[in-house]
Amino acid sequence: MARVTEDAREAGLDGIIVTPGPDLVWLTGYRPTALTERLTMLVLTPGKRPALLVPVLERPDAEAAEGAPSLEIMAWSDASDPYQVARDLLHQEGRFGVSDSTWAMHLLGLQHVLPRTSYQALTQGMPMLRAVKDANELARLAMAGEAADATCREIIRVRFEGRRETEVAADLARLLQEFGHEQVDFTVVGSGPNGANPHHEAGDRVIQPGDAVVLDFGGLMYGYGSDTTRTVCVGEPGPEIRQVHEIVRQAQQAAFEAVRPGVTCQQIDRVARGVITDAGFGEQFIHRTGHGIGVTTHEPPYIVEGEEQPLQPGMCFSIEPGIYLAGRFGVRIEDIVTVTETGGQRLNNTDHGLYVVE
Amino acid sequence: MARVTEDAREAGLDGIIVTPGPDLVWLTGYRPTALTERLTMLVLTPGKRPALLVPVLERPDAEAAEGAPSLEIMAWSDASDPYQVARDLLHQEGRFGVSDSTWAMHLLGLQHVLPRTSYQALTQGMPMLRAVKDANELARLAMAGEAADATCREIIRVRFEGRRETEVAADLARLLQEFGHEQVDFTVVGSGPNGANPHHEAGDRVIQPGDAVVLDFGGLMYGYGSDTTRTVCVGEPGPEIRQVHEIVRQAQQAAFEAVRPGVTCQQIDRVARGVITDAGFGEQFIHRTGHGIGVTTHEPPYIVEGEEQPLQPGMCFSIEPGIYLAGRFGVRIEDIVTVTETGGQRLNNTDHGLYVVE
Repeated sequence: MARVTEDAREAGLDGIIVTPGPDLVWLTGYRPTALTERLTMLVLTPGKRPALLVPVLERPDAEAAEGAPSLEIMAWSDASDPYQVARDLLHQEGRFGVSDSTWAMHLLGLQHVLPRTSYQALTQGMPMLRAVKDANELARLAMAGEAADATCREIIRVRFEGRRETEVAADLARLLQEFGHEQVDFTVVGSGPNGANPHHEAGDRVIQPGDAVVLDFGGLMYGYGSDTTRTVCVGEPGPEIRQVHEIVRQAQQAAFEAVRPGVTCQQIDRVARGVITDAGFGEQFIHRTGHGIGVTTHEPPYIVEGEEQPLQPGMCFSIEPGIYLAGRFGVRIEDIVTVTETGGQRLNNTDHGLYVVE
Repeated sequence: MARVTEDAREAGLDGIIVTPGPDLVWLTGYRPTALTERLTMLVLTPGKRPALLVPVLERPDAEAAEGAPSLEIMAWSDASDPYQVARDLLHQEGRFGVSDSTWAMHLLGLQHVLPRTSYQALTQGMPMLRAVKDANELARLAMAGEAADATCREIIRVRFEGRRETEVAADLARLLQEFGHEQVDFTVVGSGPNGANPHHEAGDRVIQPGDAVVLDFGGLMYGYGSDTTRTVCVGEPGPEIRQVHEIVRQAQQAAFEAVRPGVTCQQIDRVARGVITDAGFGEQFIHRTGHGIGVTTHEPPYIVEGEEQPLQPGMCFSIEPGIYLAGRFGVRIEDIVTVTETGGQRLNNTDHGLYVVE
């Protein structure tokens, strides 16, 4: 918290405001049992002790949080106005960073009682707040990656043909948990035409012989995320699936090889996109190349055109190019990659070939 | 959506902005598979067709939503600025209501590209937007209440003594699902001193003979919420638990009997609080008397001092007074109540006595 407060000052902010979510977990270990309309707010300001404002009935939970000994914990009760209490914790004319996911009603409440303050989303003001991972965080991300790989090695042995996507998705969830995940966040099984919708989860469709199937799964293990994608084929793949898969494989490999400190995020995106565009499928690669990962499975740095942030050792993000042929099939390959002093290192290490499943 | 747009105009708003969450589900039936940093935004403005802005890769999901035929669906792609696209959907100098849970980063993004607009949280500007339920909604809430009551009747038959709170909580979750809930939101098992923390969920504590145990559970069934609380005792209760339970029972009953159209929310709170204060436990009733329920389990109307909203037929909310003796035990009794033309009707109908469990 002391380091972040100093970073905020250097970013031109008078402090930062954090509500329940990944920033609060990362800074204090505190995760309220339920996310409700009642205001919970951490305030970090230079020269002051970190202050956590909580609803009075959640005070015992807050006092039990890992970071509680470093916090001044204050409580507000139901019949009072929490923004009036919050006002005294903030400079009257300050500029503050605020967690991305803070509820608009809370931001508007603060803007109302403190009309001369101004605000900036934390990923705007301090985009790299959680982006560079320390050794402990990297170890957890590596463990989560290992567990996702173990899940991958098992899932290709289950039956696909004749089963519903939701059944294979249930297998993925079970395997992630068996290999140590405490939380499963997504289990995408996109078979045949469903694979052409990158955000399709899993539906009632019965998987057919010859289908390409996109498998994209992950969650949290020891509080840190996993996220990997492989594309499999039910029986021997036809020539078009082979061709598209090979292009995606080359794009993923090229982007990975471009990772090193000082290269910008958008350059990584351009490398992946270049391979796919050169092969004639640029219009079918309809999303960014990747996103950061840590205590959440979607966070800065974003590997996208326009993101000029240079990579630094300790950053972790996905490289996940894909090609989506509407109404027919999709292919995506995704690994989590961490930036080392000299290049990149994959946290997912299963084979990049086109797996044939039954 | 047409009615809400008209209500917004009457509330002095130029339109409303809704992001993923209960307002969006209620208005359009659309629930993105994941809540991410990518902007999804419904705009309702008088004289225009409702517009839904989505990330391009979620367009197929949005087009499959129940309300899609009434919507103008627009998509933005990863390398573009969604707020620039959103700008064209809004009046340059408009005043807009915005969903409470809209992310601050999105509100700040809109404030940045449209500096002359102003915003109000929807529960401020239109607090009763979803508060009055129609017949279909009331039927679903009644079914959810029945399922919670069935769960209550079964849970008092399981063993408490010698088991961990988490084991009884797992029984509650299983029963809610067996009786038709598609989602379990909370299963509070607060035994002995844990019962004195109203937001305690369930922990490793082994339940002891003589413990009072607060059981507070609910979730969603057919998209609508349940939420009920009963307090049980492991073996014959001692005189103090009996006395405190009887005060809470009287407070709950008195508040229920005060429900009728035209009475304000705060009057219901005052009635419950008055009974408890007169009995000498006012300081130990540390939360409001209740909250509304619908597509969420916490929404307006809030039954709290300062809420001068008069009750109207069709409103649904909890009445849940409690007394919390720190370090010792807690008692709470909660029913969902709906306002009829002439009074109130409980959607929970299990007995209010102090159940003795084994």
